[in-house]
Amino acid sequence: MYKFIISLVLFLLAFVTLIYAAEQTSEPSHGIAYPKGWQNWGTIAVSHRIDNNTIRVILGNDDAIKAARSGNTNPWPDGAILGKVVWKDTKLENWKEAIVPDKLVHAEFMFKDSKKYTQSYGWGWARWVGLEQKPFNSGTQVCTTCHTPVKKRDWVFTEPAIFPK
Amino acid sequence: MYKFIISLVLFLLAFVTLIYAAEQTSEPSHGIAYPKGWQNWGTIAVSHRIDNNTIRVILGNDDAIKAARSGNTNPWPDGAILGKVVWKDTKLENWKEAIVPDKLVHAEFMFKDSKKYTQSYGWGWARWVGLEQKPFNSGTQVCTTCHTPVKKRDWVFTEPAIFPK
Repeated sequence: MYKFIISLVLFLLAFVTLIYAAEQTSEPSHGIAYPKGWQNWGTIAVSHRIDNNTIRVILGNDDAIKAARSGNTNPWPDGAILGKVVWKDTKLENWKEAIVPDKLVHAEFMFKDSKKYTQSYGWGWARWVGLEQKPFNSGTQVCTTCHTPVKKRDWVFTEPAIFPK
Repeated sequence: MYKFIISLVLFLLAFVTLIYAAEQTSEPSHGIAYPKGWQNWGTIAVSHRIDNNTIRVILGNDDAIKAARSGNTNPWPDGAILGKVVWKDTKLENWKEAIVPDKLVHAEFMFKDSKKYTQSYGWGWARWVGLEQKPFNSGTQVCTTCHTPVKKRDWVFTEPAIFPK
């Protein structure tokens, strides 16, 4: 009988752990909560970086998409969130001249809030690394140093792609 | 007085024309209606074709996104629509090693309906060209000829990019 009870307890523990794991999202990066549902955001642009062999899509939440489509991007409006999803590049098996995504490198985000993020140029900067989306917490200066060349473009490299209306 | 009436009629005509133009969508391509709202669909993959210097995002409607994320893509489910948005490539002004979208070439779509499109391998094939989205009507064989190398992949070149859950 006790074996049955132990089995039952273990089964329940496993079940609870499974539910917890399924609901868990990544820990914050630079104090910023993981943005839910970004995987289904609309597209602002794409890019292929031939200096480090990565290929990217730049996504935006609704506020960012509206701003991008209407050219209202310098400055971007408060509430806009930009997401840059970065993969290592590779050749498409069935069309070798097409360079396409391979392994996920990381997903990076800029959260526009000109009042909240006065110390980091009006943006919150966050990054989650790898498929396990491990939070990056080495400091926003890692982000802003690289973005300094585009400080006159509200710190954003991306030029929104042209979409038909 | 008659000048005032003529002005009023002209004004009303201009107004009606303006509303009509704003609501107008592109004419069908290969008998397929222009898919509304595709500009905000989620991303399935990206690609950079170095043989013709174009860069692309592959989008999907909700059915296609669900199928892509769950690996249910051979065959793709009925109802899935894939959209390939193609731009000429160029260098990003502030980071020359980043290849990014320039002018829009066209937006191409595959509409999965294994019952409706039995004559064209289970897919409806459509394309709208340029920023004015002019319908392409030269025949679906233009599309299927090029896609023949991937007929064993349900006629789809795209391998969905890996997204974290």
